[in-house]
Amino acid sequence: MSSETIAKSAKAAFEQSQLLTASERATALQAIRKQLELRKDDILTANAEDIKAARAEVDAGRMSEALLNRLDLRRGDKWESMLQGIDDVAALADPTGIVTYATELDDGLELYRVSCPIGVLLVIFEARPEVVVNIAALAIKSGNAAILKGGKESNRTTLVLSEAISAGLSQTAVPENYIQTIQTRDEVSSLLKQDRYIDLVIPRGSNSLVRSIQNSTTIPVMGHADGLCSVYLDEHANLEKALRVVVDSKIDYPSACNAAETLVVHESLLHTIWPAVAKALLDANVRLLCDPPTLDALKTISPVPSKLDSHVEASTPESYETEHLSLVISVVAVSSLQAAIQFINSHSSHHTDAIITENDTAASMFCRAVDSAGTFINASTRFADGFRYGFGTEVGISTGRIHARGPVGLEGLVIYKYMMKSKDSNGHIVGEFGSGKKQFKHKKISTTVLPF
Amino acid sequence: MSSETIAKSAKAAFEQSQLLTASERATALQAIRKQLELRKDDILTANAEDIKAARAEVDAGRMSEALLNRLDLRRGDKWESMLQGIDDVAALADPTGIVTYATELDDGLELYRVSCPIGVLLVIFEARPEVVVNIAALAIKSGNAAILKGGKESNRTTLVLSEAISAGLSQTAVPENYIQTIQTRDEVSSLLKQDRYIDLVIPRGSNSLVRSIQNSTTIPVMGHADGLCSVYLDEHANLEKALRVVVDSKIDYPSACNAAETLVVHESLLHTIWPAVAKALLDANVRLLCDPPTLDALKTISPVPSKLDSHVEASTPESYETEHLSLVISVVAVSSLQAAIQFINSHSSHHTDAIITENDTAASMFCRAVDSAGTFINASTRFADGFRYGFGTEVGISTGRIHARGPVGLEGLVIYKYMMKSKDSNGHIVGEFGSGKKQFKHKKISTTVLPF
Repeated sequence: MSSETIAKSAKAAFEQSQLLTASERATALQAIRKQLELRKDDILTANAEDIKAARAEVDAGRMSEALLNRLDLRRGDKWESMLQGIDDVAALADPTGIVTYATELDDGLELYRVSCPIGVLLVIFEARPEVVVNIAALAIKSGNAAILKGGKESNRTTLVLSEAISAGLSQTAVPENYIQTIQTRDEVSSLLKQDRYIDLVIPRGSNSLVRSIQNSTTIPVMGHADGLCSVYLDEHANLEKALRVVVDSKIDYPSACNAAETLVVHESLLHTIWPAVAKALLDANVRLLCDPPTLDALKTISPVPSKLDSHVEASTPESYETEHLSLVISVVAVSSLQAAIQFINSHSSHHTDAIITENDTAASMFCRAVDSAGTFINASTRFADGFRYGFGTEVGISTGRIHARGPVGLEGLVIYKYMMKSKDSNGHIVGEFGSGKKQFKHKKISTTVLPF
Repeated sequence: MSSETIAKSAKAAFEQSQLLTASERATALQAIRKQLELRKDDILTANAEDIKAARAEVDAGRMSEALLNRLDLRRGDKWESMLQGIDDVAALADPTGIVTYATELDDGLELYRVSCPIGVLLVIFEARPEVVVNIAALAIKSGNAAILKGGKESNRTTLVLSEAISAGLSQTAVPENYIQTIQTRDEVSSLLKQDRYIDLVIPRGSNSLVRSIQNSTTIPVMGHADGLCSVYLDEHANLEKALRVVVDSKIDYPSACNAAETLVVHESLLHTIWPAVAKALLDANVRLLCDPPTLDALKTISPVPSKLDSHVEASTPESYETEHLSLVISVVAVSSLQAAIQFINSHSSHHTDAIITENDTAASMFCRAVDSAGTFINASTRFADGFRYGFGTEVGISTGRIHARGPVGLEGLVIYKYMMKSKDSNGHIVGEFGSGKKQFKHKKISTTVLPF
């Protein structure tokens, strides 16, 4: 199929699906789950082939062991949690059909703003094949059609997974073309030009993947460019909170986008809390890239930290622009809360930043003035996550500021439309309103449910 | 100033403004209003120069009279309504700082989703110079910094208007660079590359302006590509409503984006309601571009409409893709509601479409299945407008489906951020949660106000 045919059929499937009920969508999710269970052997066989090919790449030094591990559907409880994920999404509240604004414009003329799906999503991700199933479930639940492209290293697995999804849908009221899977990068390139049929592109993956997609399409892109999170130790920081939150933010899962990459230290703490935090980080095997004041402070304390030579070095300006994604943290001293806010606003990727403080005013100022999707008080940056936020699941974390920001759940996959109903025996026309004529009433209607 | 300097200073102004209160913003709006009043003579003098230059262009056949008229700040009550617009925006509810989701993740760990401004807006518009003042008011009220570019034919007026705005801001807590005005197309081109500092581009103007901007930036664009609205006469249509709504949708203001361009007629009405509607349109001097069934129907009635030869002609496929913006309407017959929905979904610009029907099921199906920003029952498409919807004012009408759809008021200029506060004596870390450890509570907190 040409990319135009794929995109067009996705849009047609989306349009056909507008009158489906929530229970028909739920039935479709269960049909997919059943097909996955029935085809488990085939899926795991295809997955084993992907892994075998990946093993050869790892042996040849062309792929990381970490990437290979992410491919493996048989690892731990991955298979079960993939199926459980479908049930979890099915159990979430329907994000569509909710009235978020209702007003009576005139006697018998009512306006309703109703949440509805966006349209056709193009989701591009890397490595983990189970994402096909996660995204299919989210798309069906939220009423969006989707075109999915996984990493090439998981092509065999995603192909059988998508066959199972189509087989499931073919037994339900949801159109079979509702979820389509493509396999090649060329198809992505040409789909990125189908702005007439595709409404939103969601890239999940590396910074370079997201940037390259943003540069090659006029379709809106919702993604997260990078995760350069910081923790600020305020002059009113509590030692114990500082130790716990900084270490957790850095080491709980260093390769995650919500791990801390920068530590901002108020200069009043240079000889008190900072050395203790540094020691805790060094004990956790973290390398410290320090600016002169924080470096000097470590050199002058006694006893000098044992790992000072091996794990502490001078930072460069680039250190503070780097998403380390490993046991490395950049450290900088600042002279005030205002300086900390300014440093974070100009260096962080506006993902998630935390303050450690006992001072309510400082906490409140930090949360308001730091222009990031998440601003936390005495809590680890690692909490920035759809599941932890209570969304059940997430389609990704957005560092954009349009439509959805931070962890994006089902709510981030809907928009709204305005429906208007005239109950007047002659209908309603604009020509009757204006100076010397009828005036608009704009009387609020209290409802969250559409009455027609 | 280089475009990078302009964009960077806008972002700096935005960041500095994060701790401003709603009352400081209101004071800024009043300061601007006062400066405009003080400088009225200078502004109208500059405006007269723009008009003089435009008059020469009109005389040379290079500009339309309509465009010239839109330039004129002295026309009717334009000056007063420009000033009144500032008061109206000031009187609207603050769209920021509203908690839209709040949950207790754990004992003493609270998450709040709080509405906040987007950042730096780049607003590009044509002709009407008073838009500078409208947009400045909306931006300040919603907490966004803005860079404005008007049409080159209004450069003299927008320059003095923006001087008045800066002079007003310089006496307030809102940074002077909060609202900046640029004059040349070259500056726009280079600003469209400043994706590090500019968060949203809002083009207001022709279809070609919007498309050209979408094609030359990676910054999100919120605009309306075109307004191809339709009215569908359902088989259960009421004659009087059909007559009134079709005529109003077409002739109330034919050059507006929410005017009807296409009439879709159920075939059962070809010899009943359709000829009456056609006659009403012809009486209003509307030209009809008809498909064979609707054309034949007009030829076979008696008496034959008097304007049949002069005002009725056969449509072409292009007729249904054309935004006429004049007293012309394309007409097509369909065999069913489903066919009407499909025709509209594939031909309309997803702006606003109306159904004329007495049948509740048909009305409900139409509203749900037509994939447009507005779907109306027995009401004119011309109601699609921010003021009529009750938003007080609008920054434009979005035919996009991301972030904001339909008329966009202050709510469309905000996004949200997540703020989290740990009240625990040791702060909160992620490492304490998981299998065999603490579980998330996700207990809803009922509030719309941030408690810190």
